[in-house]
Amino acid sequence: MKENQGPDLWIKEILMESFGLNFKVEKTLYSEKSPYQQIDIVKTLSHGNMLLNDGVIMLSERDEFVYHEMISHVPLFSHDNPQKVLIIGGGDGGTAREVLKHDVSRVVMVEIDKMVVDACREYLPGVSTALDDGRLELVFDDGVKYVEESEETFDVIIVDSTDPVGAAVPLFEKKFYKNVSELLSENGIMVTQAESPFYNADFQQSMLSNQRPYFKRLHLYLFNTLTYPGGLWSFGFASKGVHPLKNTHSRRTNRAKFVTKYYNRNIHQAAFMLPTFVAESLNEIIDDL
Amino acid sequence: MKENQGPDLWIKEILMESFGLNFKVEKTLYSEKSPYQQIDIVKTLSHGNMLLNDGVIMLSERDEFVYHEMISHVPLFSHDNPQKVLIIGGGDGGTAREVLKHDVSRVVMVEIDKMVVDACREYLPGVSTALDDGRLELVFDDGVKYVEESEETFDVIIVDSTDPVGAAVPLFEKKFYKNVSELLSENGIMVTQAESPFYNADFQQSMLSNQRPYFKRLHLYLFNTLTYPGGLWSFGFASKGVHPLKNTHSRRTNRAKFVTKYYNRNIHQAAFMLPTFVAESLNEIIDDL
Repeated sequence: MKENQGPDLWIKEILMESFGLNFKVEKTLYSEKSPYQQIDIVKTLSHGNMLLNDGVIMLSERDEFVYHEMISHVPLFSHDNPQKVLIIGGGDGGTAREVLKHDVSRVVMVEIDKMVVDACREYLPGVSTALDDGRLELVFDDGVKYVEESEETFDVIIVDSTDPVGAAVPLFEKKFYKNVSELLSENGIMVTQAESPFYNADFQQSMLSNQRPYFKRLHLYLFNTLTYPGGLWSFGFASKGVHPLKNTHSRRTNRAKFVTKYYNRNIHQAAFMLPTFVAESLNEIIDDL
Repeated sequence: MKENQGPDLWIKEILMESFGLNFKVEKTLYSEKSPYQQIDIVKTLSHGNMLLNDGVIMLSERDEFVYHEMISHVPLFSHDNPQKVLIIGGGDGGTAREVLKHDVSRVVMVEIDKMVVDACREYLPGVSTALDDGRLELVFDDGVKYVEESEETFDVIIVDSTDPVGAAVPLFEKKFYKNVSELLSENGIMVTQAESPFYNADFQQSMLSNQRPYFKRLHLYLFNTLTYPGGLWSFGFASKGVHPLKNTHSRRTNRAKFVTKYYNRNIHQAAFMLPTFVAESLNEIIDDL
């Protein structure tokens, strides 16, 4: 019996009224409403299992390696000696998986929605695989509240958030960035999910302007995804002074200790090279390289 | 009266059975069958006018600048003194528009389908704008036949083709690349449309393997599009010896003479930096940088 003899089901992102991505669904594996959002995990015909929050695609098994490698290895290889890492969000576990490939001593992951973690543990085991690592403390709490109340310092803080809508909005505001900057150690780096350079230029200006007062260096870097609109996506890179391209790669040896599928030394550099229209949109906010 | 009160029309690419891109259509501007293909130009709600050949999206007004800048300025700025350029295909005129921004003396554009050119002149005037430039000779002929019979030499040959299906298949075969290589001048460069690194790895290996025997240097370079599946797209760079990154930028002054929206010196370099999975797929075929 073929599993895909059911109705002709397609995922079609609901947020975009005039264009979108669609993926044929073989079957729905998980569909529950948590206190925070609707969570769906579907098996697609072409992209493996796919996680959606409130109907918006979060990741697919086929391309999640790009997002998770780039949100993790860029800041960790830019830092001289990252020992303590804080992840805000990232409930699927993919960012923790990549961070834990480094010789870090402690990772705190603050995810608001335990149901996302539980669903991913069951239906996205290759993504959530590192959540039981002994170096990881998993905290189910509001990341905004956590950074306000914590007194611990971190070398790298990764804000692995959803789009800037609904409950995630405070993760893109000045107060949050101020609190994050106060938790960072002397050479600390913050990385934030920064949407599409093609479709969200206004948002990028706003987000980076909100970060600007609290960080000495500010940049944007790019990567590619199959499951977000436009394909080209970005992260913000904010630091207390560390330059993302003048780092200590050459002195670090643990680069060679693990395998990556997208990230490498050349991609680290190339990701910060911005197309003219992106550079012009942000040139009064971000720093020169 | 609002123009979009008609039926709920969407462009949905027909080639991909399990995933795709879709764009809401405001109205159809042009729809004719030429001797070679079905040609449609539609007005989309979000991406301006859009050209489709046989139901496959060729370009949209919103993002065509990326494709056309990258297929043109990368080879032309890699060459020391490009004077004569041959474009195979490119009936919409966008590649010719970018090539003619350089101080070239002669451009020959060989397009098989006059109806594409005529339709784009009418409904994509910003793309086809340079087709009446006095330096351009427009030839309506089969590009495969043209490169077999021509005895003229060119500094840069750009193969601005559709996907490797149907009538376009011979543009990806050894015999064609051999003929192209014989038309290139001593420091000549050929650039070819090379599909998606995520979705068409097998094709890329095959295409570049077919080019390999006739070129001293062979590379792949990347750019981003909103209208092709996956967003990340690529061109092949083949030369008789010219290195794409050790070029004569610094000695060239005409770079500053015109405006680009995507291409710049940094992007030229970054485009050749390949993600690990792409580099590994091609490392026995292409050259080291």
